[in-house]
Amino acid sequence: MRAYDLIKQKRDGSVLRSEDVRALVDGYVAGTVADYQMAAFAMAVFFRGMSRDETVGLTQAMLHSGIVVDLSEVPGIKVDKHSTGGVGDKISLPLAPAVAACGVPVPMVSGRGLGHTGGTLDKLESIPGFTVDLPLADYRRLVRELGCCLIGQTKEIAPADKKLYALRDVTATVDCVPLIASSIMSKKLAEGIDALVLDVKVGSGAFMKQRSDAVVLARTMVELGAGMGKRVVARLTSMEQPLGALVGNALEVRESIEVLRGGGPPDIVELTVELGAEMLVLGQVANDLDDGRARITTSLRDGSALERFGRIIEAQRGDRRVLDDPRRLPTAPRTQPVPAPRTGFIGAVDAEAVGVASMLLGGGRQRAADTVDPRVGIEVHKRIGDRVEAGEPLVTLHVGDVGVEAAAARARDAFRIDDARPPAPALFLERLSGGPA
Amino acid sequence: MRAYDLIKQKRDGSVLRSEDVRALVDGYVAGTVADYQMAAFAMAVFFRGMSRDETVGLTQAMLHSGIVVDLSEVPGIKVDKHSTGGVGDKISLPLAPAVAACGVPVPMVSGRGLGHTGGTLDKLESIPGFTVDLPLADYRRLVRELGCCLIGQTKEIAPADKKLYALRDVTATVDCVPLIASSIMSKKLAEGIDALVLDVKVGSGAFMKQRSDAVVLARTMVELGAGMGKRVVARLTSMEQPLGALVGNALEVRESIEVLRGGGPPDIVELTVELGAEMLVLGQVANDLDDGRARITTSLRDGSALERFGRIIEAQRGDRRVLDDPRRLPTAPRTQPVPAPRTGFIGAVDAEAVGVASMLLGGGRQRAADTVDPRVGIEVHKRIGDRVEAGEPLVTLHVGDVGVEAAAARARDAFRIDDARPPAPALFLERLSGGPA
Repeated sequence: MRAYDLIKQKRDGSVLRSEDVRALVDGYVAGTVADYQMAAFAMAVFFRGMSRDETVGLTQAMLHSGIVVDLSEVPGIKVDKHSTGGVGDKISLPLAPAVAACGVPVPMVSGRGLGHTGGTLDKLESIPGFTVDLPLADYRRLVRELGCCLIGQTKEIAPADKKLYALRDVTATVDCVPLIASSIMSKKLAEGIDALVLDVKVGSGAFMKQRSDAVVLARTMVELGAGMGKRVVARLTSMEQPLGALVGNALEVRESIEVLRGGGPPDIVELTVELGAEMLVLGQVANDLDDGRARITTSLRDGSALERFGRIIEAQRGDRRVLDDPRRLPTAPRTQPVPAPRTGFIGAVDAEAVGVASMLLGGGRQRAADTVDPRVGIEVHKRIGDRVEAGEPLVTLHVGDVGVEAAAARARDAFRIDDARPPAPALFLERLSGGPA
Repeated sequence: MRAYDLIKQKRDGSVLRSEDVRALVDGYVAGTVADYQMAAFAMAVFFRGMSRDETVGLTQAMLHSGIVVDLSEVPGIKVDKHSTGGVGDKISLPLAPAVAACGVPVPMVSGRGLGHTGGTLDKLESIPGFTVDLPLADYRRLVRELGCCLIGQTKEIAPADKKLYALRDVTATVDCVPLIASSIMSKKLAEGIDALVLDVKVGSGAFMKQRSDAVVLARTMVELGAGMGKRVVARLTSMEQPLGALVGNALEVRESIEVLRGGGPPDIVELTVELGAEMLVLGQVANDLDDGRARITTSLRDGSALERFGRIIEAQRGDRRVLDDPRRLPTAPRTQPVPAPRTGFIGAVDAEAVGVASMLLGGGRQRAADTVDPRVGIEVHKRIGDRVEAGEPLVTLHVGDVGVEAAAARARDAFRIDDARPPAPALFLERLSGGPA
């Protein structure tokens, strides 16, 4: 195996042997394959794609570059959820404790926000004291004791993915289906899960703007998981506007707590219930999706999900009093409304622009090395189909130290105002599944 | 200008502004653009190509990354020749002294061999003592005093090209027309030339296997030169079999000396005379190509080209006695014939395979950092159309320390033996020109 030859073969459209892809990744981690060679390879993959076998080879190489957590000591079927990322997507926060409260263990390794998308870890860290950097021993213990643990990608989990992702991030090779799919699945398969629910986002705020692309990504991931003996369900869901009413780190924790208290915006509740139902069915705690929906809904209404989240916060050294008193969360020093330029109906929302606006306020990262301001973000007042009067606020910016002008302009331009009321977009688009029966 | 954005734009098929391409290259040389970003960019260029303006921007950035030599002190029109590289292509060695002897100054900055192709510098260095690493002051002086100097790319000449070429060499992004064209032209334009003759090779031993690709490369280079006010002639010539009878460093010097003594194989003589005639016309020493051909032929026959080569060797600290006694050149300790497996006519030669065979004997480089063995190489006994008896040698290997088995196999397989005699291939295929009248 010479890196040069593999780059050239991929460039020229050949299909590589799965073991050659593995050897390339192994060499990259070991340092015998240079980062510039891997960058050229990733760009060639962007243009040429990867066969199923190649993608399996890449996923396995990254998976086995680190520890595959063994959770066999934990009784029950371990199920995780992963979202491909969107704007206002805080579903993991109410979902994981709700599913755990219903009896399915949720071993969840999450990521950080980048570009216009938020990340579960950044949101959790806005809870005072909350730590996502736990050793794997604690992770295993908490999944066993609490049925849930919410950590970040440790050094031991798929280090090859971590290294390759950082390289893709600076070489414009992130948005490429086989690279996305293998990155997600190598991390998820390392967590110790038995089954997985994927929330594949489609629309203006998603990485996949086109439904057809999202289907290909979903199918690739389902096949990767199934090929390694895991049951996987992928739901394609709409990201044509921000999820819920709040975008930003502490703001999204606040909204998640509302959901865990039985309230919250309908789309967040619906998505939590639906994805939770899938997880309960995969975890063999619910008989079918209807049964699952009922159980998740109950857990949100009877306080058991909230109580579970409190125990998780405590176990991860956070201040659980935020659940009863959200004012303990970081708060922006000031707010600024962004008025509608005209009267009409919200025809479309560029959700990515709303995400970028939040990032410009300091709530997200342009580059992976940036830090985030937990206080800032965007309160979204209008959704597709809503009527708006000229001058009425479209959003309210929660402003910290930077970016208010640029964020206001981005947020205002994100809303298209039409004369006629458009139909509200469907939240659930498609469902794929695979794996052992 | 953010490198990331330029990579992404190129990846997605946008045409970059010429100044953005320049900024990218400047950043790469300055170290603000990482090598992995440049590698990803080069791979994106491989797939997307470059517009004329982008190629100009790239060429100018590389040209102006170093010194553009000023030879205005040297009287006359300075003309150089560049070949895109082949097997047995030692034309520069007889050509440069012949043209200089005819009164046209030849400032020649050459390269080293890589892969199956040989390099002028490696050949020259097989002359005991010969140094190609002269300071630019000596280069200028020798062009003025002798009408010719044969040096390598110094640190001052197009350092960006040197850095980028080394990167392309290990990331499978060498064979890409705009990158090849800008690399060649940035170096040639930095030499201080007024006009240039390009020998663009086509066929089994060339980088361009297809004539159509070679035409695109030739046209790109002619336009680049013309755009910078230089007269450029490109000749497309056949590389369907090794040029001449000898492949290898000292062996090719030996054959060049034969040509400078008025002998040598017909194809080498023809190519020397033809390219020399073009140079004399560009240099306004010959009235037309026929006049030029006559003058070059005379310089080879009357000893003036040989005498000029002797003075160049001496000035570059080499042992000029090799001209009278080629046994002073390094010689392989043993030879081994490679017999024909059957009787028939040579139908085709894989010239690249012959070049690789020579490399395997140690005569060339797999990687730019390898060293070469000046003694070894291949003596080619049969050309396309020649009759051969089973057992009669196709080639004789000049063997040093390594590679004899592999080289023998490669060399034998390089010859296709047919029952019918094929027509001999034409040496000259096409001619393009451009630049100020």
